[in-house]
Amino acid sequence: MTLQEESLNLHKTHKGKLEIQSKVKIENQHDLSLAYTPGVAYVCKEIQNDPDAAYIYTSKANMVAVITDGSAVLGLGNIGPYSAIPVMEGKSILLKELAGVDSFPLCLDTQDTEEIIRACKYVAPSLAAINLEDISAPRCVTIERRLMEELDIPVFHDDQHGTSIIVAAAFINIERFTKRKLTDMTVVLSGTGAAGSMVAKMLKKIGVQTIYAYNIQGVVDKRKYDSYDFLIQELLDQNIFDTPQNHDNTLASIMKNADAFIGVSAANLVTKDMVRSMKPNPILFALANPTPEISYPDAIDAGAYIVGSGRSDFPNQINNVLAFPGIFKGALQVRAKKINEEMKLAAAKAIAYIIKDEELATDYIVPSAFDKRVVPAVSDAVAKAAVATKVNRIPQK
Amino acid sequence: MTLQEESLNLHKTHKGKLEIQSKVKIENQHDLSLAYTPGVAYVCKEIQNDPDAAYIYTSKANMVAVITDGSAVLGLGNIGPYSAIPVMEGKSILLKELAGVDSFPLCLDTQDTEEIIRACKYVAPSLAAINLEDISAPRCVTIERRLMEELDIPVFHDDQHGTSIIVAAAFINIERFTKRKLTDMTVVLSGTGAAGSMVAKMLKKIGVQTIYAYNIQGVVDKRKYDSYDFLIQELLDQNIFDTPQNHDNTLASIMKNADAFIGVSAANLVTKDMVRSMKPNPILFALANPTPEISYPDAIDAGAYIVGSGRSDFPNQINNVLAFPGIFKGALQVRAKKINEEMKLAAAKAIAYIIKDEELATDYIVPSAFDKRVVPAVSDAVAKAAVATKVNRIPQK
Repeated sequence: MTLQEESLNLHKTHKGKLEIQSKVKIENQHDLSLAYTPGVAYVCKEIQNDPDAAYIYTSKANMVAVITDGSAVLGLGNIGPYSAIPVMEGKSILLKELAGVDSFPLCLDTQDTEEIIRACKYVAPSLAAINLEDISAPRCVTIERRLMEELDIPVFHDDQHGTSIIVAAAFINIERFTKRKLTDMTVVLSGTGAAGSMVAKMLKKIGVQTIYAYNIQGVVDKRKYDSYDFLIQELLDQNIFDTPQNHDNTLASIMKNADAFIGVSAANLVTKDMVRSMKPNPILFALANPTPEISYPDAIDAGAYIVGSGRSDFPNQINNVLAFPGIFKGALQVRAKKINEEMKLAAAKAIAYIIKDEELATDYIVPSAFDKRVVPAVSDAVAKAAVATKVNRIPQK
Repeated sequence: MTLQEESLNLHKTHKGKLEIQSKVKIENQHDLSLAYTPGVAYVCKEIQNDPDAAYIYTSKANMVAVITDGSAVLGLGNIGPYSAIPVMEGKSILLKELAGVDSFPLCLDTQDTEEIIRACKYVAPSLAAINLEDISAPRCVTIERRLMEELDIPVFHDDQHGTSIIVAAAFINIERFTKRKLTDMTVVLSGTGAAGSMVAKMLKKIGVQTIYAYNIQGVVDKRKYDSYDFLIQELLDQNIFDTPQNHDNTLASIMKNADAFIGVSAANLVTKDMVRSMKPNPILFALANPTPEISYPDAIDAGAYIVGSGRSDFPNQINNVLAFPGIFKGALQVRAKKINEEMKLAAAKAIAYIIKDEELATDYIVPSAFDKRVVPAVSDAVAKAAVATKVNRIPQK
């Protein structure tokens, strides 16, 4: 059976991937009188007296909604809310299977920024957090920022932060392994959407010296400021994106003498010659999926030292699964009001330090998505960072 | 332990009543590649080609949202969305435990009619149906009607229809048992909100001759038409509510010579003398909860022949649990686009005929909420009625 047949078969046989389960039994009148009327009224009154009691007596404390408008699903683009359901269900079951966090998909019948914000606010009372997913840039940034301001529960757009946290973990480990200082590094970034912009932010935060960015318009250049969306303008304002002095608007022109390349863009943008033009022992993270910016064998053949991809069939997979389950688990553990920059950085460091100094290798820069140590390490670090930055509502256990 | 202690304890110990469960295992890279990327993309594409494929490959086909604004929760009134969570969770687990239907609570942070309608429409794509719950009248009627028109999935406000379906079942059985014809009966209804208005509609549909209604403004009288909300005006227009010729605006004045009383209103409105003023062998359904319009012992003492209540500690409990699980199960089975009048009537008849002629008794007019025959009988009848009225998308199995 092909992967296609096997996947369709799995989804059809199980009629989707998630179901709801009762935690209490309802077998007789007494059960009913406790879980439903009249007993449930006492629980309602407790919450009426203290809304925070919803975290104690209901499933709210552990309940996340995975919300999308279907505008940027995987590499498939704007396929709409119905076609997005299988991906959101996948996300939901990963949260549960890997981190014990409950969640359900909400695929919205709108792609209007303000309406998406409103929809999320409407449904917030029964949730501990919102996982935004597969919403196109730069709207996703606006939506996440507004919701982080206007809601008192964590709102986390995984497409922005997931990749950036794991790339940051990889670069922390590249510094540990190669002894090349991040503060000396020039990184070329291809793709300035949701993932790319946050990758750049995180890399600057952990010390990377220079980041040149490239997108469908060519090389990102402060002199073309007015032609960019607000997100790129902001990254230029904050000196997250640097402007190369000499370039001819091609990706090739800015890759010369770069230490590292990170692609979150499109298939086959990088040639072997471009790799050969980089500094010795270059680092290539070609994350376009399923076809990367340059294939693993081609990158190695052209002299790349450390290569990462989004694929599970090559080393150093940059897989969001390393980050989001533990991040939500940690945030929920201390009833965090938000997932802030410090918590994301703590997650990146926790992922990096799963691998001991002596275990690090060119093909072991990030841990496996199924390494059982990842989720507890990430959730613990995230909860600690929430407490340290005082966004927690309850102490860490 | 008191019921209060026991109920609080149950909710606290289990941290709410529901959780999400994965239907597929995620233990290694291969599992991940089937349930999530890259395999899931094939499933997305199937749905992109045919949106109805979401019913085949995702949990949508069996997924209901229980949606409230917390404006009319149980007998507690407008306690808001947070305090409403325990009731919605109760509903969700009953749907699952009794009928195998998956559902999750959405407690909305708005009580604006238009915003509630919008919120429901936003979240509809991942759902098979919407169960509206505990929304105050007459807004609940507007919301349900608009959503039934504007969405192609069933929208069912249980507070309106649940009680009415089971009261109708009870009256079908009262006719079978007593041989008193519904077409000769005068019924007095106390309470003209969500439940009361639909009880009146259903009773007229099954043949009840005359219904006099009473509410907080006094006796409902066509001569005071302009003082009523749109819902009561409509029921007067449609001759669902009849206007008594002689009355002094008291409940007592319209109960004289009535065959039956149905209360969906408030505690202790009915005295023994009022019962004594009714036709011989009167029927009393005093459904106010937890304190009925007249207690079971008082009603019996005053000569009532058949007495029903909302309570489980007396005979003939009018419990919504008899209707909604089977109704949703039946509607989902044939992918109904709506739950129409014919389907509700089919549910009422199915509930009534669970009890055989020879089993009927003054204290056995409605089946027990835990009678295992109820859900299959109701779902089967509802699915058949959906097919007969052509609101089904697929044939009944």
